[in-house]
Amino acid sequence: MPAYATNMRLKFPILALTLEIITIILFAVFVVYDDGKHGGHGAHNNATHHEEKAQDPLTLYPMFQDVHVMIFVGFGFLMTFLKRYGFSSVGLNLLLAAFALQWGLLMQGLWHLDDGKIKVSVFKMINADFSTATVLISFGAVLGKTSPVQLLIMTILEITIFGINEHLVAEILGANDVGASMIIHAFGAYFGLAVARMLYRPALRNSHENDGSVYHSDLFAMIGTVFLWMFWPSFNSAIAAPGTDQLMAVTNTYFSLAACVLSAYATSSLVEHKGKLDMVHIQNATLAGGVAVGTCADMDIGPFGAMIIGFVAGIVSTLGFKFLTPILASNLGIQDTCGVHNLHGMPGILGGIAGIVAVALGKKDGSAAMQGAALASSLGFALVGGAITGLIMKLPFWGQPPDQNCFDDSIYWEVPEEEEGEESLAHGDQKAEA
Amino acid sequence: MPAYATNMRLKFPILALTLEIITIILFAVFVVYDDGKHGGHGAHNNATHHEEKAQDPLTLYPMFQDVHVMIFVGFGFLMTFLKRYGFSSVGLNLLLAAFALQWGLLMQGLWHLDDGKIKVSVFKMINADFSTATVLISFGAVLGKTSPVQLLIMTILEITIFGINEHLVAEILGANDVGASMIIHAFGAYFGLAVARMLYRPALRNSHENDGSVYHSDLFAMIGTVFLWMFWPSFNSAIAAPGTDQLMAVTNTYFSLAACVLSAYATSSLVEHKGKLDMVHIQNATLAGGVAVGTCADMDIGPFGAMIIGFVAGIVSTLGFKFLTPILASNLGIQDTCGVHNLHGMPGILGGIAGIVAVALGKKDGSAAMQGAALASSLGFALVGGAITGLIMKLPFWGQPPDQNCFDDSIYWEVPEEEEGEESLAHGDQKAEA
Amino acid sequence: MPAYATNMRLKFPILALTLEIITIILFAVFVVYDDGKHGGHGAHNNATHHEEKAQDPLTLYPMFQDVHVMIFVGFGFLMTFLKRYGFSSVGLNLLLAAFALQWGLLMQGLWHLDDGKIKVSVFKMINADFSTATVLISFGAVLGKTSPVQLLIMTILEITIFGINEHLVAEILGANDVGASMIIHAFGAYFGLAVARMLYRPALRNSHENDGSVYHSDLFAMIGTVFLWMFWPSFNSAIAAPGTDQLMAVTNTYFSLAACVLSAYATSSLVEHKGKLDMVHIQNATLAGGVAVGTCADMDIGPFGAMIIGFVAGIVSTLGFKFLTPILASNLGIQDTCGVHNLHGMPGILGGIAGIVAVALGKKDGSAAMQGAALASSLGFALVGGAITGLIMKLPFWGQPPDQNCFDDSIYWEVPEEEEGEESLAHGDQKAEA
Repeated sequence: MPAYATNMRLKFPILALTLEIITIILFAVFVVYDDGKHGGHGAHNNATHHEEKAQDPLTLYPMFQDVHVMIFVGFGFLMTFLKRYGFSSVGLNLLLAAFALQWGLLMQGLWHLDDGKIKVSVFKMINADFSTATVLISFGAVLGKTSPVQLLIMTILEITIFGINEHLVAEILGANDVGASMIIHAFGAYFGLAVARMLYRPALRNSHENDGSVYHSDLFAMIGTVFLWMFWPSFNSAIAAPGTDQLMAVTNTYFSLAACVLSAYATSSLVEHKGKLDMVHIQNATLAGGVAVGTCADMDIGPFGAMIIGFVAGIVSTLGFKFLTPILASNLGIQDTCGVHNLHGMPGILGGIAGIVAVALGKKDGSAAMQGAALASSLGFALVGGAITGLIMKLPFWGQPPDQNCFDDSIYWEVPEEEEGEESLAHGDQKAEA
Repeated sequence: MPAYATNMRLKFPILALTLEIITIILFAVFVVYDDGKHGGHGAHNNATHHEEKAQDPLTLYPMFQDVHVMIFVGFGFLMTFLKRYGFSSVGLNLLLAAFALQWGLLMQGLWHLDDGKIKVSVFKMINADFSTATVLISFGAVLGKTSPVQLLIMTILEITIFGINEHLVAEILGANDVGASMIIHAFGAYFGLAVARMLYRPALRNSHENDGSVYHSDLFAMIGTVFLWMFWPSFNSAIAAPGTDQLMAVTNTYFSLAACVLSAYATSSLVEHKGKLDMVHIQNATLAGGVAVGTCADMDIGPFGAMIIGFVAGIVSTLGFKFLTPILASNLGIQDTCGVHNLHGMPGILGGIAGIVAVALGKKDGSAAMQGAALASSLGFALVGGAITGLIMKLPFWGQPPDQNCFDDSIYWEVPEEEEGEESLAHGDQKAEA
Repeated sequence: MPAYATNMRLKFPILALTLEIITIILFAVFVVYDDGKHGGHGAHNNATHHEEKAQDPLTLYPMFQDVHVMIFVGFGFLMTFLKRYGFSSVGLNLLLAAFALQWGLLMQGLWHLDDGKIKVSVFKMINADFSTATVLISFGAVLGKTSPVQLLIMTILEITIFGINEHLVAEILGANDVGASMIIHAFGAYFGLAVARMLYRPALRNSHENDGSVYHSDLFAMIGTVFLWMFWPSFNSAIAAPGTDQLMAVTNTYFSLAACVLSAYATSSLVEHKGKLDMVHIQNATLAGGVAVGTCADMDIGPFGAMIIGFVAGIVSTLGFKFLTPILASNLGIQDTCGVHNLHGMPGILGGIAGIVAVALGKKDGSAAMQGAALASSLGFALVGGAITGLIMKLPFWGQPPDQNCFDDSIYWEVPEEEEGEESLAHGDQKAEA
């Protein structure tokens, strides 16, 4: 049973400042501007091909900014659906991503030193942003139940492990995963679920009063959903080989997502009371098509092939929210706040499997066995890494919130008083006075 | 009098799944990736010119993403101004647009087959997004008064008719309409108004308690307004001929919108009680400059010419909201929820007329008569097509909401309880108990 | 003591319409489309270099749109943190920016006529957007305490003075300020503070009931924060020389902002009660790294150099909010609503000093003395210009709000009733009846 010393006054600032100072020192030693005088090694084996072709160093910049929006607005606002946890959702998302992108650049770059240096290009900045996505996915699994200190620790460990798996998958196995269904989505989800399992809170088995939305918090979350949905084609194509491959990645993702919306809405209505739509499904399952088409995005599967993937993903994801999440929580002790298993976990595996099939069918050069190994590696690193990380996070001095303060900003944030004078002014969230 | 069987449990899922499966089959038959080996036929007669020049198949991608943001964030959030209809506004906007872009790609592409195939390029994706705009404009006219099933039916029919008119205007008449004042804005508005006329609800003549905004719903709507406003230069220039024409389209739209803001604010203050500004005007009439300059956007009308168009549009649109919308509702039975007549209808006609004048003055190659014919065609197809569509939508088994449940998400959505325990927690919208 | 004739019915519309008509006439005389047939003179001495290289006139368009989003969404929503001033924040931001970009294009362009004309390119549109930023920064200082008429007057004067200082700094002194730490951020902040000093309201020394946030208004503000944060690399690099310089500006800003987030969060926790985070700091101080790295952005300071600047800026800015803002208000009579001194003022000076040091160290061609003169000039023009402007704004017929109506939309806006029937429905802000 952890101690609930949730006063962050020294722990958090000292950790954050120390991490940043160490990071700056490592940058001083290792990181220089890209001078364009190298072959380039990015996250994927098509990186060389890519960077050589690009003349203007800012060719990829618009795509980078789309990915940037997904990371900071998309993930950040998607998690604001909770009625009293919006500050933490968008605020800690910013904190974790800002640190993760620095740490990710180091952890990915150290595998590919060029004259002993990491040469920062827009391509590397995209990959740095990508690495943050794993952390933000895992954050979704433990949302509301962890302190900023715990989350920074998770960030360090997860990004480091991600860097190893990513190197293994892309460089050693030579697997295709342009949209990162396996190395980001499945990895981030199962890492987070393993952490959540370690941090299991029996007292939260019965629903917590703050573990739900209010009307406007659901609208804030839709800001995140829609920005993720729109820019997903950029996510899946940003590091594709320029030209036809990149266009294919854009096109496949665009249509997969469109088909996914229809199947997610239909399934939501089918499984809900009186055929009503459920915001949780709409906010999340409509995005599963982007996850699931990731590995295949730059493969010649045809627009209709992408649509089938998206269509299936929308159904699987919605059914997962409706039927699987409650079972995971009650039977396996995995309390998945945002349902990342449904948005990133299962669709990520679906994407990995689709990739195996597509490569086996010759839709892209590669080996189906290596694709399978890449999926297994991503899941293995995620589960083992997440479990170890969860154990470390469980140590009783990281300021973890007590059960009754879960899903509540006010434990780590100054929250505005909703009262003026002696009048009680409700804001959809405030306890009525007597 | 329609029956009010609003339980969507079977109707909606079956329709959505069936439509998506049919669409996937049609994609399997007709749609392939663009291989760059064709002249290209887009929505407009400058398409060939355009695609030939573009080397990188993703040259237009940033503009596509701007348009994408307008469709999904812009239109979606603009309609969240209603206090209890935000889920439907942004959620059904996503549903309709996701289906419409697939259907639009087919309906536009079938007129321009290339070796029997539709070759998807970014250019075609922009046009697919464009075609969704017509539906979303019409959605604004009937917002709050229609079921998801009715709206999907409207989408199929409207896009199909749009495809015919668009082919006629661009290919047969050879008219200029780069920013689509006529073929999207005027068409979408009058189509929607014709539908609204068919679905006239006498009981809503007196204002409905949910047909209004609350403070924060008006702020959500401003997210839509501002994203539409900012990216409108991309909308009007995305399919312009690259180079000078495209720059002109960007510049004209930028300045037209800027001038429109000043005149809309001034007019709003002039016509309102004590000179106060009205959020309805600010959210909508500030955008009329983008609509009205559409047809002329790539014409050599000079920045000041564009500003005059925007200036007039801002005044016309604001006056329309203040004086014309109530008359349409009370005298003509046209209940236009979002006032699309003022934002898209009149400014669209203004844009069409400006185009006739500009072509007559030699600001662009073309025939003033053909411009006039294009405007007439767009209005004619819209009114007749909308009326027929409205009649079909009126059939009594599409789950249309009863009058008292109009403008209320809870009829088609699970809406979060605003109560915790036995305390009533107000959220700016909730009925007080007792 | 000013008269409180806040009825805007004639004053505001007449002023807005007159300004727009004058502007259109000036555009008719001076402004033409860019024909590509000139060397180009932008805001900075690298402009010529820049425009010559750019072939496609829309090369800079994606960066322009990023800046556009910062101006209209970023600044607009950042200021929505006030509980009852969201309409004004995002609405008047749109009004002022829409007028300022037109006026800015004229005021900057008149210094660089080409055959007697201002030739509008995307580069000039970026500079026009830039000039609006000064006004929006100053708007933050006087937010809630000024009428739309006063603000339009401030816009005219501030942009005009900005144009003079910008010409002096960039063309006469030849100083570097690619990200405009000095000529936009420091200038805008001290201009606004000087205005605020002139408009000092003793009655507001004790906190005003509306001068604070509610839960959801803080979330709206985070929309502004995150969009500013993400696109700041575009702001600082948009007018840099293409190629390596521009990449450097992007990279430096990206890492400066990331480091700034960590130090701002740490400092916020360190200075707040029980180590909690304060939304005011998170919304603002996380951006100080973008301001402070502005002048040095395209200099060869190394990514770690940029991070040090951002790290320091995050600390300085947070400390400023905590300790300096209250002192300025109570001791100097400077009531800085948004704390622009902490976000733009001090970080802007920090940026100017960093630029002096960097140039002295040879990180960029230039003269440290000229950099110092540029900083002094920006501060001088700001303080003197702001004081004069403030005096003019104080004249008693511009409709300034009385003290008790400060920070309240309802004085200039129709605000929706939160009541339905006779039930009082609270919205987090509403006065209880009886």
